[in-house]
Amino acid sequence: MTIKDIAKQCGVSVSTVSRAINGRPDVSDEVRQKILAVVEESRFIPNYTARELVRTRSDTIGVVVRGTSNLFFADIVRLVAHVIEGSGYRMILRQIGSGEDEVKSGAILEREKKLRGILFLGGRFDYTRREMEILNVPFVCCTYTNCFGDLREGDFGSVSIDDEAAAFQAVEYLISLGHRRIAALVAACNDRSISELRCQGYRAALAEHGIPFDPALVVETGSFGMAEAYRGTEELLRRETGCTAIFTLSDMMAIAAIKSLTDHGCRVPEDCSVIAIDGIPMSNYTIPTLTTLEQPGQEMGREGIRVLLDMVEGRGEAQHIRLKPTLRLGGSVRRASSGEPRS
Amino acid sequence: MTIKDIAKQCGVSVSTVSRAINGRPDVSDEVRQKILAVVEESRFIPNYTARELVRTRSDTIGVVVRGTSNLFFADIVRLVAHVIEGSGYRMILRQIGSGEDEVKSGAILEREKKLRGILFLGGRFDYTRREMEILNVPFVCCTYTNCFGDLREGDFGSVSIDDEAAAFQAVEYLISLGHRRIAALVAACNDRSISELRCQGYRAALAEHGIPFDPALVVETGSFGMAEAYRGTEELLRRETGCTAIFTLSDMMAIAAIKSLTDHGCRVPEDCSVIAIDGIPMSNYTIPTLTTLEQPGQEMGREGIRVLLDMVEGRGEAQHIRLKPTLRLGGSVRRASSGEPRS
Repeated sequence: MTIKDIAKQCGVSVSTVSRAINGRPDVSDEVRQKILAVVEESRFIPNYTARELVRTRSDTIGVVVRGTSNLFFADIVRLVAHVIEGSGYRMILRQIGSGEDEVKSGAILEREKKLRGILFLGGRFDYTRREMEILNVPFVCCTYTNCFGDLREGDFGSVSIDDEAAAFQAVEYLISLGHRRIAALVAACNDRSISELRCQGYRAALAEHGIPFDPALVVETGSFGMAEAYRGTEELLRRETGCTAIFTLSDMMAIAAIKSLTDHGCRVPEDCSVIAIDGIPMSNYTIPTLTTLEQPGQEMGREGIRVLLDMVEGRGEAQHIRLKPTLRLGGSVRRASSGEPRS
Repeated sequence: MTIKDIAKQCGVSVSTVSRAINGRPDVSDEVRQKILAVVEESRFIPNYTARELVRTRSDTIGVVVRGTSNLFFADIVRLVAHVIEGSGYRMILRQIGSGEDEVKSGAILEREKKLRGILFLGGRFDYTRREMEILNVPFVCCTYTNCFGDLREGDFGSVSIDDEAAAFQAVEYLISLGHRRIAALVAACNDRSISELRCQGYRAALAEHGIPFDPALVVETGSFGMAEAYRGTEELLRRETGCTAIFTLSDMMAIAAIKSLTDHGCRVPEDCSVIAIDGIPMSNYTIPTLTTLEQPGQEMGREGIRVLLDMVEGRGEAQHIRLKPTLRLGGSVRRASSGEPRS
């Protein structure tokens, strides 16, 4: 069914149908209702491409999600969609693989949809000013920020936890329970990204408490994958470092580490504690339940949109919000050696 | 930077730049390379919306994924993207929530992108002929099929497992190990969807082996959620049915069921076995490892695109492919009562 068929069926002109669909005031309520009833009945789909080409400015906010298998993002997307619509905007979602270029995807989406602004859920930590010139609308980095690039603070907004501080907090918690030989299971120590930042936090916590850094306690797995984390934990066991606790980058890596330890007869938490950062729902269902620093995902999403709309609507400066994670106690961490299990 | 700036910088006309970008033959190699170098350097983004409006037929295949938190789909999407591009097409991905209307999303995408065909990854099982008239291009249901609607076989393609047969196989495996009191943890028994089909398979397996159906052994959780599965398992324990094994709809529900059993002092598999259908990577990392019927996700994705492209390119009839799941042995199932654990 085309717009012409609908016009014919309603006994009105094509332009009247168009005006009714687009909510223009110059159509009587009676005619509008008649047209919309036929549109609904016929399940006619307006040609949005044509409509958007004609418009010079849309009410659309783009959300680019990098990493399709990240459960943590799925929950944030739902909230973000809700907030965007509640603010009178329309959301367009683009989901890309973790190896893809979110900036280019955002730029294409911006042209296609005449976006007003972009929220990036996940991305690189080292944007340069030059490469971001490709974007002509305000953008906000959500769940991460630009720590290694040369973007200026006024060029973008960001909402994230402080990754170094979160790692510091996790490792300091282990130290407070008497752990001294603390291993770090990370993707890489110098990836100019989240893994590097959390490595720094790990080392800073050790230094703060006068514990010498031992490279044998750090295993680089090369990725955030579970299979790699499983093998990385085996490597750690082979090194016989005498570690009593492991700090991991993410819940998924921690789940694989716990499995690896258990499969090799090393009990969690009796023989080795495991702590992570993320707090995904799944890690409430592991055995033992994971002790982890929960990222305030919902709050990050809500603040991300707030910061973005402030920029879109020209209210004040670009903001950079750092939120604090919360220690979620599970059963995967206990006091070192003779202590009591924590739950 | 606009196309005019690029033309100016290269000393050619705008239409020459346009022809070079679009791979038209009427531009010399030398000029084309010069233009593309400037385009690359400037990170100029062509206006795809305008381009697509002019085209009457694209080379684009739409993939509509329903359910953003389904890990099982994430892996299929990666393969599907690869196969589509390898076949000379371009993929557009639309990710929607599990409560949203995939048919309408597909129809909008079809208009916007002038799609050649649509692959639905996840959707309803009860499409009517009338509501699918909204789609003007071939479509394939991937990982599910139309069991309850009135669509004719020639109207669409499908690739899935036989859900009833898969449930039958899982429950028969438990019966072969001596289990007689087998519970079913399902979303609903009559949702005209996957849960209903798998319920039927559960009942058929019991009937086949002369085991009377006991409604007390069936818990309807109302969803595929983990929290609901955890509480459903508690409900089952409260009923004191004397069950020695649980059949669950999905790996995620099984992971929550195992946690619930463990938290209530019921050991898996010593006191109660748990089996599921899905075979997501995560369930290799649970304690114990999940015994589950692994869906051939990669093969479903590959076949789904093959069936779709056969329809798009006019080769033969719409096909309906049923693939078989594979029993993946973990540690969550053992022989009933006095038997030995299986791994």
